[in-house]
Amino acid sequence: MVSIKDVAKEAGVGLGTVSRVINKSGPVKDSTRVKVEKAIKALNYKPNEVARSFKMQQTHSVALIIPTLWHPFFSKFAYHTEKELAANGYKLIVCNSQNEAEKEINYISMLEKNKIDGLITITYTHDLDQYISSHLPIVSIDRHFTQDVVYVTSDNETGGKVAVKELVKRGSCELAYLGSVSAIKNESVKRVAGFKKEAELHRCNYHTLVVEEPVKDIYKTVLRFLEDHPKVDGIFAMNDKWAKIIIRTLKELGKNVPQDVQVIGYDGITSSKDEELTFSTIKQPVPDMAAQAVQALIKIIKGKETEQKIVLPVTFFEGNSTRSEKQG
Amino acid sequence: MVSIKDVAKEAGVGLGTVSRVINKSGPVKDSTRVKVEKAIKALNYKPNEVARSFKMQQTHSVALIIPTLWHPFFSKFAYHTEKELAANGYKLIVCNSQNEAEKEINYISMLEKNKIDGLITITYTHDLDQYISSHLPIVSIDRHFTQDVVYVTSDNETGGKVAVKELVKRGSCELAYLGSVSAIKNESVKRVAGFKKEAELHRCNYHTLVVEEPVKDIYKTVLRFLEDHPKVDGIFAMNDKWAKIIIRTLKELGKNVPQDVQVIGYDGITSSKDEELTFSTIKQPVPDMAAQAVQALIKIIKGKETEQKIVLPVTFFEGNSTRSEKQG
Repeated sequence: MVSIKDVAKEAGVGLGTVSRVINKSGPVKDSTRVKVEKAIKALNYKPNEVARSFKMQQTHSVALIIPTLWHPFFSKFAYHTEKELAANGYKLIVCNSQNEAEKEINYISMLEKNKIDGLITITYTHDLDQYISSHLPIVSIDRHFTQDVVYVTSDNETGGKVAVKELVKRGSCELAYLGSVSAIKNESVKRVAGFKKEAELHRCNYHTLVVEEPVKDIYKTVLRFLEDHPKVDGIFAMNDKWAKIIIRTLKELGKNVPQDVQVIGYDGITSSKDEELTFSTIKQPVPDMAAQAVQALIKIIKGKETEQKIVLPVTFFEGNSTRSEKQG
Repeated sequence: MVSIKDVAKEAGVGLGTVSRVINKSGPVKDSTRVKVEKAIKALNYKPNEVARSFKMQQTHSVALIIPTLWHPFFSKFAYHTEKELAANGYKLIVCNSQNEAEKEINYISMLEKNKIDGLITITYTHDLDQYISSHLPIVSIDRHFTQDVVYVTSDNETGGKVAVKELVKRGSCELAYLGSVSAIKNESVKRVAGFKKEAELHRCNYHTLVVEEPVKDIYKTVLRFLEDHPKVDGIFAMNDKWAKIIIRTLKELGKNVPQDVQVIGYDGITSSKDEELTFSTIKQPVPDMAAQAVQALIKIIKGKETEQKIVLPVTFFEGNSTRSEKQG
């Protein structure tokens, strides 16, 4: 029976190269690819044998790069990623990048050397695009790379629209969006875009405060904004961290939440399974985002087709920072 | 030069077996061990060559077994473990056991097969003792196995004593300990032991409520206790989760915290680096626990001696649920 070794010998290349060509799982020069494909034809090497040989070479491990594990969103995402990987026979390697590109590049290099099978990244560092290749099995969360790297995101624009809809339905029409923006393109800018579109649709007044990251003192920024805009009666915050600070600051200013001002956050992540959400927010479908990222990655590892962009629906969670519809 | 292969050939065993004998890093039959040791002597195989050969075989990966990543204590511990491992050239594999022994045993088996170099476990499952061997490179957190497995813990007994000292210093002497207990022996039972000793030392009245896990409804349990013990003016909670519920329940009962009742928790873990502690608690030294666990594990992997029990000091964090010393 013809083996992958025979193909490698015939083509005059290494086993890893043959595997990458067959599985489209890594960078290969065009001339090399042609050599390998010729060898496969010449030897009449069969696909099911390919699958078996390839399987032998896999590490059955996938790395997840996140800024830090010590954070509710990332720890919840990592938790669900590990669950989904384990169910599919893969181990999870975790890397806290702490936004250091060097540590991230190191993992991309491990991937190129077939020391790991795939990579899921949540990253906001600069200059990573040149290292990321659409030939590598990589799935990105929220961030859009210039290369055609597959990415998974929650539906941020609809999230912004839903927040406005819920605020208006409950009686607010002097609206504000408060948040920050990173120099790295990511999907969260669509939250404010959705907010604006929907506010215009309802002919509501609206204000936006978008501060460049890193934000030194969110609290002071929020306080100044609220003092300058006393008429605002409905706020959409870029995430739950901002929402919590906004709610606290409103109370300090003697405003009643939700009677005087309604607030809706974004994320809807508690710090553990046992904890409950309290205030109103747009919930990201974290378990589904993790599962879909893993499923897309496994498809790429196995050389199958997958969608380039996976957008998952968000939901409104009704907490204690919005009024009931009747009250509104 | 004599190689590890020569030793394996001479002894009639595999390379992995020789490595396990040399590095005391895995289970080997006594008769096999004797054969390998004879071969080493016969060939005059040298230690520095051993170290080099062994290094070639390492995976440079360590697995961390925790009940779940989606939890402030475990995610913070995993964060610091990865940081310390990365600084020492090791990757971190994470396993959410969800208290399933089967998943844990699978990782112990990977360790036996040299697919990972070492294991750090935080586990509360039954019947694990038979799979854990002191010959394997394993470090346990909080839990004491019957085998001489190295373990790292915070100083729980002193934590209980410090809590009472701080409550008494601030004017409370009608004390209570509230918490749960697991069927699996772990170090947290020492918190209540320290509490009792110190309360007796100060001749304070004290009550303890220790409920068997799993606790169905902590809130109801706490409420009933507080209603039954209206005189209690100082409470030590087994952990911050209990402390939060106790503080909330006291407020619902119309009691003022800390003026009427002081409360001290245990853990002192926030859900992210940015968040701040608010109430008073005994802080576990999580960064140091992770670092010491990694350092001990690397010593074991390299066949060096290490302490069998590593106990790390806790500190009192003064938050808003205890009075100032002057007030007390």
